[in-house]
Parts: sequence; C-alpha cells; structure tokens
Amino acid sequence: MKYDIKDARLTKQGIQRIEWADREMPVLQSIRERFSKQKPLKGIRVAACLHVTTETANLMITLKAGGANVTLCASNPLSTQDDVAAALSKHYGIPTFAIKGENNKTYYSHLEAAIKSRPQITMDDGADVVGLLHSKFRDYLKDVKGGTEETTTGVVRLRAMQKDGTLQYPIISINDADTKHMFDNRYGTGQSTLDGIIRATNVLFAGKTVVVVGYGWCGRGAASRARGMGARTVVTEIDPLKGLEAVMDGFEVMPMNKAAQIGDIFITVTGNKHVLRGEHFKVMRNGAIICNSGHFNVEIDIPALRSLATSVKNVKEFVEEYKLKNGHKIHLLADGRLINLAAAEGHPASVMDMSFANQALSAEYMLSHYSDLDRRVYEVPKNIDREIARLKLKSMHMSLDVLTEEQEKYLSSWQEGT
Amino acid sequence: MKYDIKDARLTKQGIQRIEWADREMPVLQSIRERFSKQKPLKGIRVAACLHVTTETANLMITLKAGGANVTLCASNPLSTQDDVAAALSKHYGIPTFAIKGENNKTYYSHLEAAIKSRPQITMDDGADVVGLLHSKFRDYLKDVKGGTEETTTGVVRLRAMQKDGTLQYPIISINDADTKHMFDNRYGTGQSTLDGIIRATNVLFAGKTVVVVGYGWCGRGAASRARGMGARTVVTEIDPLKGLEAVMDGFEVMPMNKAAQIGDIFITVTGNKHVLRGEHFKVMRNGAIICNSGHFNVEIDIPALRSLATSVKNVKEFVEEYKLKNGHKIHLLADGRLINLAAAEGHPASVMDMSFANQALSAEYMLSHYSDLDRRVYEVPKNIDREIARLKLKSMHMSLDVLTEEQEKYLSSWQEGT
Amino acid sequence: MKYDIKDARLTKQGIQRIEWADREMPVLQSIRERFSKQKPLKGIRVAACLHVTTETANLMITLKAGGANVTLCASNPLSTQDDVAAALSKHYGIPTFAIKGENNKTYYSHLEAAIKSRPQITMDDGADVVGLLHSKFRDYLKDVKGGTEETTTGVVRLRAMQKDGTLQYPIISINDADTKHMFDNRYGTGQSTLDGIIRATNVLFAGKTVVVVGYGWCGRGAASRARGMGARTVVTEIDPLKGLEAVMDGFEVMPMNKAAQIGDIFITVTGNKHVLRGEHFKVMRNGAIICNSGHFNVEIDIPALRSLATSVKNVKEFVEEYKLKNGHKIHLLADGRLINLAAAEGHPASVMDMSFANQALSAEYMLSHYSDLDRRVYEVPKNIDREIARLKLKSMHMSLDVLTEEQEKYLSSWQEGT
Amino acid sequence: MKYDIKDARLTKQGIQRIEWADREMPVLQSIRERFSKQKPLKGIRVAACLHVTTETANLMITLKAGGANVTLCASNPLSTQDDVAAALSKHYGIPTFAIKGENNKTYYSHLEAAIKSRPQITMDDGADVVGLLHSKFRDYLKDVKGGTEETTTGVVRLRAMQKDGTLQYPIISINDADTKHMFDNRYGTGQSTLDGIIRATNVLFAGKTVVVVGYGWCGRGAASRARGMGARTVVTEIDPLKGLEAVMDGFEVMPMNKAAQIGDIFITVTGNKHVLRGEHFKVMRNGAIICNSGHFNVEIDIPALRSLATSVKNVKEFVEEYKLKNGHKIHLLADGRLINLAAAEGHPASVMDMSFANQALSAEYMLSHYSDLDRRVYEVPKNIDREIARLKLKSMHMSLDVLTEEQEKYLSSWQEGT
Repeated sequence: MKYDIKDARLTKQGIQRIEWADREMPVLQSIRERFSKQKPLKGIRVAACLHVTTETANLMITLKAGGANVTLCASNPLSTQDDVAAALSKHYGIPTFAIKGENNKTYYSHLEAAIKSRPQITMDDGADVVGLLHSKFRDYLKDVKGGTEETTTGVVRLRAMQKDGTLQYPIISINDADTKHMFDNRYGTGQSTLDGIIRATNVLFAGKTVVVVGYGWCGRGAASRARGMGARTVVTEIDPLKGLEAVMDGFEVMPMNKAAQIGDIFITVTGNKHVLRGEHFKVMRNGAIICNSGHFNVEIDIPALRSLATSVKNVKEFVEEYKLKNGHKIHLLADGRLINLAAAEGHPASVMDMSFANQALSAEYMLSHYSDLDRRVYEVPKNIDREIARLKLKSMHMSLDVLTEEQEKYLSSWQEGT
Repeated sequence: MKYDIKDARLTKQGIQRIEWADREMPVLQSIRERFSKQKPLKGIRVAACLHVTTETANLMITLKAGGANVTLCASNPLSTQDDVAAALSKHYGIPTFAIKGENNKTYYSHLEAAIKSRPQITMDDGADVVGLLHSKFRDYLKDVKGGTEETTTGVVRLRAMQKDGTLQYPIISINDADTKHMFDNRYGTGQSTLDGIIRATNVLFAGKTVVVVGYGWCGRGAASRARGMGARTVVTEIDPLKGLEAVMDGFEVMPMNKAAQIGDIFITVTGNKHVLRGEHFKVMRNGAIICNSGHFNVEIDIPALRSLATSVKNVKEFVEEYKLKNGHKIHLLADGRLINLAAAEGHPASVMDMSFANQALSAEYMLSHYSDLDRRVYEVPKNIDREIARLKLKSMHMSLDVLTEEQEKYLSSWQEGT
Repeated sequence: MKYDIKDARLTKQGIQRIEWADREMPVLQSIRERFSKQKPLKGIRVAACLHVTTETANLMITLKAGGANVTLCASNPLSTQDDVAAALSKHYGIPTFAIKGENNKTYYSHLEAAIKSRPQITMDDGADVVGLLHSKFRDYLKDVKGGTEETTTGVVRLRAMQKDGTLQYPIISINDADTKHMFDNRYGTGQSTLDGIIRATNVLFAGKTVVVVGYGWCGRGAASRARGMGARTVVTEIDPLKGLEAVMDGFEVMPMNKAAQIGDIFITVTGNKHVLRGEHFKVMRNGAIICNSGHFNVEIDIPALRSLATSVKNVKEFVEEYKLKNGHKIHLLADGRLINLAAAEGHPASVMDMSFANQALSAEYMLSHYSDLDRRVYEVPKNIDREIARLKLKSMHMSLDVLTEEQEKYLSSWQEGT
Repeated sequence: MKYDIKDARLTKQGIQRIEWADREMPVLQSIRERFSKQKPLKGIRVAACLHVTTETANLMITLKAGGANVTLCASNPLSTQDDVAAALSKHYGIPTFAIKGENNKTYYSHLEAAIKSRPQITMDDGADVVGLLHSKFRDYLKDVKGGTEETTTGVVRLRAMQKDGTLQYPIISINDADTKHMFDNRYGTGQSTLDGIIRATNVLFAGKTVVVVGYGWCGRGAASRARGMGARTVVTEIDPLKGLEAVMDGFEVMPMNKAAQIGDIFITVTGNKHVLRGEHFKVMRNGAIICNSGHFNVEIDIPALRSLATSVKNVKEFVEEYKLKNGHKIHLLADGRLINLAAAEGHPASVMDMSFANQALSAEYMLSHYSDLDRRVYEVPKNIDREIARLKLKSMHMSLDVLTEEQEKYLSSWQEGT
C-alpha cells in the first residue's frame, strides 16, 4: 500500500485523537454500525479530497466499514493533521497522501495520487478532484458514477460547470443539506472562530467591539457567540434583508468605513473579496485585530495592508503586526486564512458528525441511484437530512412529539378551520 | 356612502391612534407619498378583508392616496377596533363594515357588503373574500384582476384551490415575502405574545418555565423573547430539523407529555390542532397558564379541558380558571384565541409597516402585470421585497455596504480563488 | 369602621384581583398560614402608608391574620387601585383611606387618618408617616414601638434623621434585604418598565436603540430586558465601576450628550435629578420616546422640555408630544412619573411577594425585639432574608444542595488546602 | 544576580509574549509611566510570590520602574511560563525563581529564595510568603512594612491569623477591590474556563447541558458564558439567595444528585470540597466531562472517582478517562486543577490589568501609610478602586457623565422631593 505522510511515529497519537473525535460523532457511529453489517459500498473505489482531520478520519473509517476502498488526500496544505494521516495509513489501512505545510507541487502530486486510484465515487471540498478529472485525467471519467461536494465554494464551481454543460457526472451538494449548512456554518464556525481568535491572542471578548463582516450563516454564528461572550457586536452587510435581520436581532449595522473606526476585532465571513481593504485599515484603532473565517484568504486585502505598513513583524504565533504611518498597529491573524482551522481545531466533531453523516449516506445513495441521475448538482435527499437530524437529537437525549391521527388529518386538509 | 360601524363618536380617537401608528410606519409613508403623486391605482375598486386596526387603516389610506376606491370589512369579528372603523368611515372616506364582537350573521353580511363593491383587486387575511367570490358570488369574478393574501392559512387554502384548478385569478402571497414572514412572525409575534400574556396575567417571566409549542418563525420569536425576559424556556416540536435547531439555540426539547409536567406558561404556535389536550392538562402543575398565538383557536383542546373540569370561572378579564379533579387550577387565556390580538394590540405598527408595504406594492404590481399572470398563487417579486428592506433599514438609521466593481466581478466569476 | 374610598361597588372586582395576585405570592401565603395560628401581632395597631395595590392588600390581610388592627392609606395619589381600596374596606375589614387621583389636601387628610389610629407599628413607602409623626403628631410618638420602610428614598431620609438625632424609634429598612432590592428592583422593574412603555406606545423593541440612564439594580434590569427584547442598548453612568460593569456586560457606555443623539427610547432610573435636560432634548431624533422609572418625576427636566416646545399635545393616553423648533417631536410618557406604575401594573405580584414577606416578618421581629433596639435604621435580619429566599425557591420547584459534614468542616477551617 | 529558571534560550520568546500582554494592560501602562518619573518605590525590596505569567511580568516591570528591587517566585508549580521566567531574569533584571513542573522541594526552595531577599513589601497569591515569614523566618518580620494578597483563599487565611492575633504586619486584600473581584472572577474566569475546556476537549457547547457548581462571581461568569455559547445551563447552589438569583437569571437550579444525571459538562467553582463525589459519579451519563475552575483541586473527589473506576487512561492531553463498572466513561480534565490555567492561558491580560493595577497602587499606598496601619487585613482604598475603573473605561473608548452642580446638591440633600 502506498501513502505519503510526515511521520509514522505519530500513529499512536493519531489513533487516540481519532477515537476522541468519534466520541462526539454518534450519528456517524450508528451509520458505521449498519455499514459494517450491510456493506453497501462493497468494492467501490472512493477518492476523497478533504481536510485531513480526526473527523474526516472517522468518515473514512465508516466508508471502509461499508466495504469501500478509500484513498484520501488533503484539500488544503495547511489543515492536515500529521498524526491523523499516519494513523489512517498505518493503522486503519486507508492510504493517505497529506503532509502539513506541503508545497504546491506536493499538494498536486497528492491530489493526483488520489485520482490515480481510479475512483468510482469522488468526495471533494472545493471541487479540486472534479476539476482535475475534467482536465488532465479525462480518461478516468468513465469509471466515475458520482460524487459529493462539501462546500459552497465547490458547489458554485460545479453549478458553473453544469451550466456550461461540461460536468460529466452527478454530484450531491452536501452543503445544501439543512443538517449541514444550518449547523456547521452557524454553530461550528461560530464557536471555533472565537476559539481561534482567543488561542491566537488571548484577548477578552467582554467589553470589546467586534465587527462581523457578513450576516450569512457563518456571520450570524460568529455574531451570536461574540455577543454571548460579552462583546458589543456590529455587523456589516450588502444585502438589505440580512442587514435588517441583523438589526432586529439587536446588532448595529453600518458600512465598513464607519465600523472600521470603532472595531477592536474584525471577523470576515462573506465569501467575497477585499471586504477589508486600504481605506479601512487607514482609519482603524491602534491595536485592531483582523482575521478571516471565510473559505478563501482573499477577504482581507493583505497586499494593500502590506503596502501601507512601515514595518511588519511577527509578534506571536499566528499574529503579524503591521505598523502604519500614523503609528497605529494592526494585528493580522493567520495570514488571513481560516482562523478556526489555523489557530484552533476547526469545527468541533459534534457538528462534523452531521456533515459527514450526509457524506456517508449520500455516497450510499449515489451508488444505488446514479443510473437515474443527470450530469448535474443534486441536493441531499430530504429523508436523509431528516433522519440525520432525528439521530442527532436522540444522541442529545432530546425527543420530539409525534402527530396524532387527528393532527395528521388536520394538517392535510384545508377545509377545516375558522 | 354606506358603512357599518359601532359608534361615530369614536372618530376623533380613531384618527389620533391611526396617526400614532403611522409614526412607526415609515416605509408605508414613503410609498404613500409616491402613490399620491403617481396615482397608480386610479379608479380601481379594492375590497379588503383584514383585521380592522390602526395599521390596516394606514394601508387603506395609502391605497386611497394611490387613487383606489377601497371598501374594508373585518377578517375577524373580535379584532376590530371600533374607533378605527369610525375614523375610516367618517374622516378618511373609506367605507368600513366592522363592529367588534359582531355575530356570525353580521360578520358575513359585512363580508358581502365588501364583495358587493365589485372589486377588481381583493385583499384577504384568511381567503374569505376569495372563498365567497368562488361560491356565492361567482358572477363577480369576471371583474377581478388579481388579489393578495396576508396569511399562511389563507395561502394553504389558495394553493389547494390552485391544485383543484378552481382558483379563477392570480393572487400574490404576501406571507412569502421575506420582509413579511421573517419579521412579523418572529419579531412581531414574539413581543406581542409576551405582551398579551403580561397584560392578561401580570406574571413575572423571570424564573418561570415557559413551554413554547412549535419552533417555526412565531415559535422562535416567542422562545427568544421568553428567554430574553429571564424565563427557562422549553420547546416542543414534531420536526427533527427544527427540534435540532432549538437545541443548538440552547433550548430544551422534549415531548409535550413531559413538558406539560414542568411548565408554568404554555404558548401554542404550531398551526396544528389539539397540541395541548386532555392527557396534558391532567399532568400540569397547579396554576399553569395556557394560551395560543397561532392563527386558529383549535390548538388547545378546550372541549377536553372543559370536560375535565369540576368548575370553570372567570377570574379576570381574559383569564378563565378551570379546576380539575386533582384540585389543580389551569388558567386559559382569551378562550384560546390569539393572545396577542385579544389581550394586547397585535403586532406593533413597526412590523406591520413591512407587511403592508408588501400589500401596497403588490397591489400596484398586480395591476400592471395581471394580464401576464396565471390563475395561481405567486410570491412577492424579489425586488419589491428587497426595496422594502432597504427603506426600512434607512428609517432605522442603519446602512449597508455597496459592492465595489472588483467585488461584483469576483462574485460573478467562479474561476478565481484558491 | 371609618374609611374613604371611591366606590364600594368595585368591591367584588377588587376581591377577584386580590385573589389573583395572591396566587403569585406563595411566600406571603405560607407566612399568613402561620400567622393565623400563632397570632404574633395580636391587638397591635399598625398604620401602613403604601401603594394601594392588590399585592399590598395581601400584605394587609396577612397582618390582620396575625392579629393586627391595620389602617391603610395611599403613599402616592396616583397609584391607588380603587377596587382594592373598596375590597379592603368593605370585604376584608381593613379601613383604607385612598382614592385614585386624590388632590394634595385629601392625600394628607388620608395620611392623618392613618396616623390617628395611634399606630404601634408604622409601615412607610417614602417615610411620610414617620415625617408627620415627628412633626405635627409628636404626641403619638410614645405609642410607637418601631416601623418599617420600603424604599431607598425613605431610607435616605430616615438615615438623615438618625444622623440629626431626631429619629425617635427603630426602623427596619426593607429595601436593604437581598430578597427585596436584588429582586424587585432588577427583575420587577426590568419587566414592568418595558411593559409600561409597550402599553403606552405599542412600539417594537427589536431594532430600536434604547438608552438606559443609570446602571443600578433598576438600570441593569431595564438594560437586560431591553436587550432581551432585541434592542441595541446603551447605558449612561456617572460611576466608573458601574460604567465598567455595563461595558463588560456588553453594553455601550457614553455620556448623555452623545447618547441623546442616537436613542429611540430613553429610560431614566438614576434617583438623580434632571438627567435628561434641555441640552439633551435639543439633539434628540425626531420621534424620541422619553420616560422615567425612578422614584421621583424629577429625573426628566419637564419644565425645560416645555419651554423648548412650540406646541404640546396629548396624542394618546400616557403620551404627550412636544414639538421643538427644529420640527422634531419628543414623546414624554406619563408626565415623567414611574412608567411601570402609571401605564402598567407596577411590579408583578411575584416580586412583591418577597418584599412584603420581609415586611410581615420584620413587623413580627420588631414587636419581639424593639426594646433592645436603638433609635436608628436597621437592616432586615439575615435569617429572615435567607428564609424568604428558601421559601421562594421551593415555590418555584427548585432546590438546593445541603453541605455535607465534611464540607462544613472544610469551610470553617483555614488550615486545609494546598 | 541569582535566579533559577528552566532555559535562558526562551528569553526572546518571553519578551515577545510579555510585550503582547502589555498591549492589553493600558491601566498598568499608565501607572508605569508615572512610576518611572516619580519612583515611589525607590530602593524598596519586594518579594512577590505569584503565578509567573506574562501579566505578572508586566506588574514586576512596573514595580521596578517605580524603583523597587523585586524578587519573584512561583505561587504554583504548574502555572509557571518558563519563557517569562527567563525573560524576567535575563532581560528585565528581575531575579525569578520558578520552573514549570518543579517538585515540592524545589517549590519551597524557591519560596525561601524570595524570602531571603528580606522583603519590605510582600505580594502573595495564597499567603505562602506570609506563612513562611510567620513560621520559619520570623527574624525577617521586622523589615516588613506591609503586604498585599491576591486571592480570597489567602485572605481567608490572613483573616484567621488576624483573629488569632498572630498576623504581624498590615496587608491589603486585593481581592476585595471591586475592580478585581467583580471583573477577573466573573469575566476573566468565565471566558477562560470555557477556553480551557474547549482547548482540552474541542467539544461544541451549543446543545450541551452544562452544570455550573456554585453561583458566586466565578460561577455566574461561567454560567453566563456557557449560555452565551448555546448551552442549556444548570446551576447548583447551597445558598438560597444565590440560588434564587440564578433562577431569576433564567437558569435551572437543582441539587447535584439530580443535575449529575443530566449534565454533559460539569464545572466546579465553589471554593468548597468534594462538591462532585462518588454518589454523583455513579449516576452520570456516559461521556460526562468534569473539571474545576476553583482555587484548589479538592472540589472534585478524585480519590473516590479512582476507586469507582475499573480502568483509568489518558486519552488526550489534559483528559483522563475513568471507566466505571456500569460501562460509563467519565472524563476528568487537568487532574481537577484550575482548568483555565492548566489547559488555557488563565485570565486574559485585560482583566489582570486591573488586578495588578490594584497591586501596584496598593504597594505604593502601603509604603506611605504603613505606619498608621494596624496588623490586620485592609481593603483597597475606594479612590484607588475608582481611579482604576476610570482609567480602564477610558482605554476602552467609553466615557461617563459628570454630575452637574444642581445634581450634586440634589444627591446630598434629603429634603427635596415629593
């Protein structure tokens, strides 16, 4: 078995940490139990390009339990946990190609290594496997039955390909599942973004002014948690509906040129580019902290910041101090990359449990339905979504009411009433 | 001019109160100003069947300013404000047929009075005008160009008619506008439900256990405000996704047979029937308060409560005490009717501002587009929705960012990134 | 039996409302049960000068159950509930001198009527009985064994008298009890202030900017509840410690000349004078709402507002509109009197339960200890305070842990540890 | 110069981190500036026994700037940051005796090294210097002018010594300053406790049930932040007043034998012993996480847990898994030591800023007042406390109102009003 990892001696630590994450992933556990018995993925080759973390490891182990032959590579050179890569390759028998901090060349060689497993199912986090299959490895397309995509960003790309007519196989958009986007973006990103900032800076949120840039699911998670930690929280938006919602939720909404002047901590979560830029840096308070929790590191215009600075120095792990001409220091965290992955541990296992339950069940669904599907992006089937929510609630010791017969009749009838 | 009101002497008070509400309706104000100049509804006959309140009055005045000949009747016999009906009829020149507490016969005669104006546009809150036009007054259908419907309940009926193929003209579902359902159900119902309970009972929420039945928009409004007032808040649900969201928002989720044992105050907002019923009343604490903030008064099974009671007495306006065999007293508020309309003043004008801005702009839209529309239920056009949000934000002294050219380009391109 | 009430026909309604309040006063109920058996106040003459409300009625009934001969008069001409006065006089046999809206002369004649009962125990809410006994009725002082005082304002006066050496008998300051000031000021005033504003104006709090003037117990109650209803909440303070606490609790703190420019709703709760004054009115937004929830109506400088206005009109019950030269309208609620008493029902019975349990038990304590006490202001004995908290918790179905023997030993020893 | 540190090569890193902390300590900065000019501690020998952290370093540097000769040793063998000890000794010229993980013998030799500097002022965190001076080094007592004590625990000991008559010099209790206990215990411990738990376990708080044991300042901080992160939060108490406050703040209050059955995460902050013990472990859910954020590691009865376990293993840094006979696993964090110090970085610099400003100003005060003081524990003078609050607020860009002349007069007079 081939693989490419940093250090095999990290295997034991990796196992321990994978098991710890598993403890918070009860839904995936229950799917794994069923997969072990039913082997729905028997003999199927899966190429997965995901963040190589403890949670992903549990997904890989689940797919293998279902009978799949899985190859894993990193979807981001910086998010790889080397002990996990070691444990997967050495202990769990899942070939993994991922080394934290790998350069661009290695990154692509790893991607190709995964593709060379000639996948029948692909799992992407940013559509990189799909992209390469549709360009350099078009010959392999004929083996592929279908795929899944984890992120919004990837889905945007895939929809563009679908529109172009270039997409060659059906893909399920995991991100559209309610149990995914409503939970990991809001609750996962909310907590882990604050966690990343605190680990990087150890600042106290109480009494600080936090500016959350964007009030999408991630933004409302971050805003809600920042307020929960005692910060005065300000939101900026471009969409009037989201802006209005933020106001009604009790936040101040103002344009960035105004917010820039009063913020202590800025968090970008827009999916857009240069939402913090030169004109904003110039008016920020001395000591302002800026960071990003959106997918790409283009949300903060770092080149502009650099060109405004008279000096730049690293003052702490993850903290770079830019001194401007007016004497003010601006602290950029983690080079503008995802702060929750860079300085903390990304989403807690508990939310990844649902995302990855969607992955596992969507892979199973794809296998039994691909022949009926077109070459386009599909949503996760509603019954999969609801079943995951039900399993999760149960694992949290919470339970629901059940409709009485009378109620079912009532809800399905429009005549009754008044 | 014909009309039917309780007491013309209430006119002055009605004017004063209508003006007070107008103060909180800046979006409708700005539409009214434009309508006065452009007269987009010139000569059009409108029959509106809505709750006759100060906010509705401002909508009627706005339609009239736009050139319409409006006739108004009550959509609910109990929600009419007699001073408003007087002011509309006597001062604003808008014939109104509504008397608070009118019996069923009068209610229907009022509805027919409105229909006899031979409307070209209908405005409904529960689809009563539509219903009557499609049964008893089918001859009048030929004049109708289109209509609007305010509530979910009405839309459910209209969609059923559309499915049956019986619906004879296009209708815009106001409730589907984001500026409607995301705001009046959540923020309006949230505050006004608590307001109604407090006015009826003067209980302190801090330290009480509040059970919110249903975690839809109304339910999450009520739950959020109950917690905001210091109550321990419990949610019951039948939908796993909503239940999970409630848990992640920090609420306990449990079935009603358990919640019934620990609640001090119960609020039903499900749109369903008998969500509080005999089996629940039997296990409630002594002194439990139960009320409804959903559309119909069937959410609480009042006949079952009555049959369990050894005595029933009115202990306070809006409060009926049911004494059970076990000696426990259960307090039912406002006969299970909408507590926020019965014991308080319904939605604050500030949220009705957006609902009714949707009504006014949808009526205008219908007039210029009806010939292109099918006999079905339509959503409010997105640009209307967004424009209302923008106007509202502006009136709140909040403002948005605007996309730079670079950002617009970035968002419309899928190639950039990584 | 002599008394002076508005209308005896209100008796039945009064009884009903007194019983309703009693439902939320379980601590006072349990004291009443014991008093009925033990008669600790047997034959004692009590003169009480308190707000004549349903909760006060239950205190009076409790004192009578303990054997006292009680006379009650109003501590404020506007807060009297005429049905309660009727029920107390006609049904419960407690002579009451109080008519809502009585003029100054009647007010003082009622006060004198209570004093002429030659009290042995006095109960004050603002030290009026004490004041009159020490001036016009000094002869009666010899009968008095001791008294109680409900408010901070009264205690300030009494402490001044103690300092002067003019105070002639011991008084227990109810307001100093933790179960009083920590609960009714914070939770009671918090909810009832918002309730008063909503009843007077029907404004939606979500999305509004609320300025809370003063961050004492009342202020933090109002600020916390305003935020709980979705308002952006700003605090002004003069004390750096309280100001800092407000900031750490997530509120913005700024001076009033700045806050005046951004507030939609202003609530004064400082105990100070003219905290809103001319310089502030001039810069307020059009439509600003101002009200007071502090003891006296001097917190808002109404004469200054009047002199700035070009017109003043009553636009709604409890709402007076002042139009300034710049065209802005400012809405003053309830003439600057306590908004929660004027427009709503004051503190919910649930918090008065604890205040009045302190009154009842302090009266009992005074009778058995007055001979050992000096002519000064005393705090409520700690064991009374704790017992009330324990009873209240129990009534709310909550319970505490009990120290183990090992823990008691640990806590009383300083040697153990590290 | 003598010192005892782990590794001089850590100096540079230590400097960097000390400077980073200084950035969040504006109050101490402003004191340092004044001290540099006025040298109020000129030539004074100070022995400080504190946690050797970046914030303490800034206090030491401030004292030295004021002219003092400072010697520092660790108040806890586990909290020492070796880079800070290196930087202080090698770069800032402050002899430091502290090595992370030092054994008991080294710990005491370090304490003695500090005492042998023959201090004139002592600074304690747990009264260890005072204890040793009063036992083994009584000869040195004659040089000591006074001291300060940081913690409640130390103050309890010192008050016992004062009562015994054994305390030989005056000591200022820093913990009693409002700017200390109201802020670091509540806001500092609140955030850092959650931070410690998240770093140790990476659990998601949203949807979890968190049991906070004790509702003192630390407990309400932890409870408020846990709720702010989306957890259902339960409180246990032994004091009825605190219990009642918790209920009114919206928390459930129940005895531990009940809470133990429903908690996912337990946080002890009582100052008491064995608040989690055998009877509780037996009924906990599988996977329960238990930790302590109180001063001593006796709050959790670890011996009892060990005796109940069939196996114990370390599953992750700071996480020990105890498997019980019923198959349930309980996870103990950081051996029951202060979780916020063990797994996170303790209080953020921003709150230590105020504690240590109190230390610096109290040392200055002691020097100029010791001759007038008795051999007892004193509170921090009120004007020091208020000045610190004022400086802190200013650093946060917040400002206060100032009393007008009229208001000052009003507040000082009791005659005015009704």
